[in-house]
Amino acid sequence: MMQNTRVRLARRPEGLPGPETWTIDSEEVAEPKDGEFLAEVRYISLDPAMRGWIKEGRSYIEPVEVGAVMRAGGVGQVVKSRHPDFAVGDHVVGITGAQSHWLSNGKGARKIDPGAAPLPKYLGVLGMPGMTAYFGILEVGAIAKGETVLVSGAAGAVGSLVGQIAKLKGCRTVGIAGGPEKCALLIDEYGYDAAIDYKSESLYPALKQACPKGIDVYFDNVGGETLDAALAFLRFRGRVVICGAISQYNESKVKGPENYLSLLVNRGRMEGFIVFDFEQDYPRGIRDMARWLAEGQLKSREHIVKGLETFPDTLLMLFDGRNQGKLVIEV
Amino acid sequence: MMQNTRVRLARRPEGLPGPETWTIDSEEVAEPKDGEFLAEVRYISLDPAMRGWIKEGRSYIEPVEVGAVMRAGGVGQVVKSRHPDFAVGDHVVGITGAQSHWLSNGKGARKIDPGAAPLPKYLGVLGMPGMTAYFGILEVGAIAKGETVLVSGAAGAVGSLVGQIAKLKGCRTVGIAGGPEKCALLIDEYGYDAAIDYKSESLYPALKQACPKGIDVYFDNVGGETLDAALAFLRFRGRVVICGAISQYNESKVKGPENYLSLLVNRGRMEGFIVFDFEQDYPRGIRDMARWLAEGQLKSREHIVKGLETFPDTLLMLFDGRNQGKLVIEV
Repeated sequence: MMQNTRVRLARRPEGLPGPETWTIDSEEVAEPKDGEFLAEVRYISLDPAMRGWIKEGRSYIEPVEVGAVMRAGGVGQVVKSRHPDFAVGDHVVGITGAQSHWLSNGKGARKIDPGAAPLPKYLGVLGMPGMTAYFGILEVGAIAKGETVLVSGAAGAVGSLVGQIAKLKGCRTVGIAGGPEKCALLIDEYGYDAAIDYKSESLYPALKQACPKGIDVYFDNVGGETLDAALAFLRFRGRVVICGAISQYNESKVKGPENYLSLLVNRGRMEGFIVFDFEQDYPRGIRDMARWLAEGQLKSREHIVKGLETFPDTLLMLFDGRNQGKLVIEV
Repeated sequence: MMQNTRVRLARRPEGLPGPETWTIDSEEVAEPKDGEFLAEVRYISLDPAMRGWIKEGRSYIEPVEVGAVMRAGGVGQVVKSRHPDFAVGDHVVGITGAQSHWLSNGKGARKIDPGAAPLPKYLGVLGMPGMTAYFGILEVGAIAKGETVLVSGAAGAVGSLVGQIAKLKGCRTVGIAGGPEKCALLIDEYGYDAAIDYKSESLYPALKQACPKGIDVYFDNVGGETLDAALAFLRFRGRVVICGAISQYNESKVKGPENYLSLLVNRGRMEGFIVFDFEQDYPRGIRDMARWLAEGQLKSREHIVKGLETFPDTLLMLFDGRNQGKLVIEV
């Protein structure tokens, strides 16, 4: 019998989710019933949103229950099937969970072409982070040619794509990231016009220099002091896209943006979004992203860590900034 | 010779603007030159925005310089004219300044009909507060029939009108104000469906009860804890209209909204505006407001204090909530 190795939520963490948050064990893999298939999971995606999914209480999605397999996007290959739309050998992407085997009724599963792009890219540039960047900056940010776009978490899975899309659309792009290596990457690989190292630079003077005309669109992945600094330089009718707030996810008390009255003074708008809201438009997003990728106009990195058992520590890389690009585990 | 009595900014205040902030003195009135008129100012408007106008630094409008006559909207009557569009006896509204005589080149001045409404109403429901309420709730808030609209500063010049306009448009209206008298006014005079007394009630349970389906639009005049509480009850695609933050204007450090991530979870929008942005649409706003007023669908109160020399103390009424309705000084 095949064994399914799985990462389960052992308890709800306070602050950073340490090793005690998780239980890793295995169970016998069940046989697919009529209308189901079984896939071997190859890669799973690690995302900052996971911190929100294991919190108690109302959010945009049900929290993961204590004892349940951790929610995660993943790609896999079908090994058994009693589902009409999925055949043995097919590659699929979906919410596989943090486990080695995925028994699915096909809901939310999508077939992918492993020849068109390496599998991990379907969890990054062609997956949820890609769609987050695409719809976040184009639909919510509503960027226009010639505008100045500031991105935090700019070397991350979403941020690196936001900057490149904005650049493609004729914007001046300024990225904020931690450390000289990431900042070099922003300029050399992702084509940012300017990079700010929040670990060694003072944000206000750095923003003043990098955004001499102010900021038209701020794409926020981090929250905290960075959000306040960006608000201070917002231009007339500027937009703040709230994609995430990774600096605050492990805090018991969120730091609210003290400079929010800049929205009044500058007639600005601060708006949150969830990528799932754009689900029906994914085909358009994926088509554009795949084309830009094929044309070499879009670069994406995956940071691949081997072994599902590394999950507890690998997840923490997101919060201390050790990853460069889309963080995935090779199962 | 006529004497112009005027309120001048003596120094920039920290915290509440006390009596030392102002100098009241007089000078000889100058004669109008070609293209100018002189008006006797009858009423001036006192607005929370004044606190922002006397602060140093960049905002949506130039700060009042130390030594200059305090900026204020007012209504007056022309007593001398060498301006082709304004004749002696005409009533005018404009940025007269906090003074008894206004020498104007006509810029920003508008003739009004004293028979259509009492003069102070041109500083309230038919003036800046009226336009603020009208465009703020209809254009920025973009309310729809059946939605729940929460208003803070709900008994104030702007808030009382916001609630009535929202009610006219078929919304459920909930107002927050301080004290039982104001709360009675909200229900009995301004037709709010529910009133919350922030001085005696705990906001979270009170909001839970008054807004059982959550809040579609929050029209914020106060900021601080109230903004946070409203964000906690924001509905899917809810809007927060940032009109002001009177609770924060005299604070050295603004309290940022800790619950701003509700915008992400609920795909909400927080947007600031300045009434001047809608200047070209004022005729439409004034026409609608005047019609509703004439039909008895809109009630407005003016709180009239006599004597320009009361300016320093009268202004403070706005910050401790002593006024009921639009605060004006009869010059």
